Amino acid sequence: MRFVDIIAKKRDRLELTKEEIQFWINGIVDGSIPDYQSSSLLMAIVLNGMNSKETAALTEAMMYSGDVIDLSGIEGIKADKHSTGGVGDKTSLALGPMVAACGLKVAKMSGRGLGHTGGTLDKLESIEGFSCEIEDEDFKKQVNECGIAIIGQTAKLVPADKTLYALRDVTATVPAIPLIASSIMSKKLASGSDTILLDVKFGEGAFMKTVDDARELARAMIAIGKELGRDTRAMISDMNQPLGNAIGNAIEVKEAVDTLHGKGPEDFTELCLQAGEIMLLQGGVYATKEEARKALIQTIEDGSAFGKLKDMVASQAGNVAMLEDTSLLPQAKYVLEMKSVQTGYIQNLNALEMGTLAMRLGAGRATKADSIDHSVGIVLNAKKSDHVNMGDVLALVYTNQELTPEWIEDFYGAYKFSTVVVERDPIIFDVLQ
Amino acid sequence: MRFVDIIAKKRDRLELTKEEIQFWINGIVDGSIPDYQSSSLLMAIVLNGMNSKETAALTEAMMYSGDVIDLSGIEGIKADKHSTGGVGDKTSLALGPMVAACGLKVAKMSGRGLGHTGGTLDKLESIEGFSCEIEDEDFKKQVNECGIAIIGQTAKLVPADKTLYALRDVTATVPAIPLIASSIMSKKLASGSDTILLDVKFGEGAFMKTVDDARELARAMIAIGKELGRDTRAMISDMNQPLGNAIGNAIEVKEAVDTLHGKGPEDFTELCLQAGEIMLLQGGVYATKEEARKALIQTIEDGSAFGKLKDMVASQAGNVAMLEDTSLLPQAKYVLEMKSVQTGYIQNLNALEMGTLAMRLGAGRATKADSIDHSVGIVLNAKKSDHVNMGDVLALVYTNQELTPEWIEDFYGAYKFSTVVVERDPIIFDVLQ
Repeated sequence: MRFVDIIAKKRDRLELTKEEIQFWINGIVDGSIPDYQSSSLLMAIVLNGMNSKETAALTEAMMYSGDVIDLSGIEGIKADKHSTGGVGDKTSLALGPMVAACGLKVAKMSGRGLGHTGGTLDKLESIEGFSCEIEDEDFKKQVNECGIAIIGQTAKLVPADKTLYALRDVTATVPAIPLIASSIMSKKLASGSDTILLDVKFGEGAFMKTVDDARELARAMIAIGKELGRDTRAMISDMNQPLGNAIGNAIEVKEAVDTLHGKGPEDFTELCLQAGEIMLLQGGVYATKEEARKALIQTIEDGSAFGKLKDMVASQAGNVAMLEDTSLLPQAKYVLEMKSVQTGYIQNLNALEMGTLAMRLGAGRATKADSIDHSVGIVLNAKKSDHVNMGDVLALVYTNQELTPEWIEDFYGAYKFSTVVVERDPIIFDVLQ
Repeated sequence: MRFVDIIAKKRDRLELTKEEIQFWINGIVDGSIPDYQSSSLLMAIVLNGMNSKETAALTEAMMYSGDVIDLSGIEGIKADKHSTGGVGDKTSLALGPMVAACGLKVAKMSGRGLGHTGGTLDKLESIEGFSCEIEDEDFKKQVNECGIAIIGQTAKLVPADKTLYALRDVTATVPAIPLIASSIMSKKLASGSDTILLDVKFGEGAFMKTVDDARELARAMIAIGKELGRDTRAMISDMNQPLGNAIGNAIEVKEAVDTLHGKGPEDFTELCLQAGEIMLLQGGVYATKEEARKALIQTIEDGSAFGKLKDMVASQAGNVAMLEDTSLLPQAKYVLEMKSVQTGYIQNLNALEMGTLAMRLGAGRATKADSIDHSVGIVLNAKKSDHVNMGDVLALVYTNQELTPEWIEDFYGAYKFSTVVVERDPIIFDVLQ
């Protein structure tokens, strides 16, 4: 098999066989296929596509390019949930404990933030002592005993994806459904859970800009799950404006804690409940959405979800006192009120801009090498469709430095106002399976 | 300017600017753009194309990536001719001396053969002592005094093309009209002649398989010539069967000499005459094809063309006695008669197969590192549309080793016979300008 012939096949719109795709991934892992050949094939895939059979074969080859976690020793249904990334997305911090309190086992590998999007690990690390790096056996033991663990992806998991992703980033071959879908799904499959719920976000602050694109990506990932025998479902959720109110790290942990106390933002709470319903149905814990919803609300009311969060944080060496009293979390030096300079209904509150503004405060990374300031960020006081008067507080800015005129200008530029009533969008647009 | 953004533009079917294309070629030459980025752009060009403006900009950037030969010191019109490559193509050896004898100046840089196609330099090196490596000044002096020189391309000419071609070869990005056209034309333009005649071949033994593809490539190259102000014309010629009768090196030199003595194969002689007509019109030596043809035939009849060939070979340190007595050229140990096993009209005589068979005898290179046996090859005794009886000699094989059963089987497999009359194809299908 000559790799140049494999590239030529895809260039000529022919279907690649499972063996050819395997040959590629093997060559990436052992270094026998040079980057300049991989990047040519990547561009051919971007422009000529891959059918569902090829995409499944690519996912499987990537999944087995490194370690595959075996969770079979853990009792019960192991449930995973993955978000395609957004602004203010602290879902795992609240949803994880909620479904764990309902009896699902959550063995989750999360990532870090880059650019305008945040990362679950960065948020958790706001908690003093919290460790994302746990040995395999300890990870399984924690999931078994505590019901939930959220750790970083090990270097040995899907090494082919790391190489490919770095290459795609510099060769303009990122935006292709088969490549995005196989990248996500190979990691989800390798991390070993029985069920996968995908939160595919669309809108300004998401990777997919339209509902249609998000649906297409969701369908591709569900097809992979089907092909490889894993129960995979997806929800299509709104990321035109930030999720919830807090955008940062410590302030998002606080918002997750508030949510587990029943005092979370409406959109975020609703997303957690709907996602939890699907996960509990997937796991066979309940037979109907209504029962599942009731149980999830119960975990908030009886404090069992918050208990699970504390158990997890304790197991992972985090300072639980910071959850019991969130004022102990890292605090910014200044909390500034950003007042509205207009009166009207908020028509648009750009998630991408808000995420970038938070990143510029230090809450996120412009490049992978940057460090994070856990204390800073933005807490929104009003969201799309809310009516505000001139002088009302639009948001609180948590910062350790003075705001620059450019930052302030960009902040106000992220808003659009309307003189007429603006409808509120549902947080979840669709559920696919 | 970030190169990844340039790749993304082509991926998204946008037109690249002259500056962006220049940035790419500069980056190739100074090594600042890594191969894995270039190959991604190459595949995007293969699949999304380039318009004539982009193709001209690419050609110009490549042309100026290294030395550009200045032939302005040479008196008269400097004429160049380029073939896209084929089997039995010894055109430069006969046509060059013919037009030089008519007063054109031929300053030609040629290449070597690879695979089933032969190279002019390899053929010339059949002549003892012949040197293709001449210093710039000596090259110009020879063209000025003798009227013709055929040398190898210097390493300093269009270095970007060397890098790009090597990359295209291993990334399945060879077949794209804008890339092929700019590769050829950048070298032709950099080598400094006033006029360019392109012999774009189509068929089994050519790079372009159909007349339409050959026309498209020809049009692309003519458009480049027009954009960059160089008189460029093209002929579309048949390469379904080998050109002339001889396929090899010394035997092709002999056939060229025979042609200059008026005893060449009909198709090859006709191609030289028609090509010569165009070149003489381009150079303004004659006003009509008829006058040009008459003059070209005259160069054969009065021996002036053969005289030019001898002058050139002598100037380049070759043993002229080998031209005066071609039996002095390298001779193969065996000359074997291949007899027809069928009776009928030759319907097909596959140029690709014949070229490959000659290569397998040692007349060509399977890889660039291979050496060449100048003495071996195949001389056809019958061509398409000829009638042969069983037992008639189809071809003579010049070889230094015994033929293997596989070789013999492939030889006969290259022929197709018909019981009914087969029409003879014209050697030149079209002329474009």
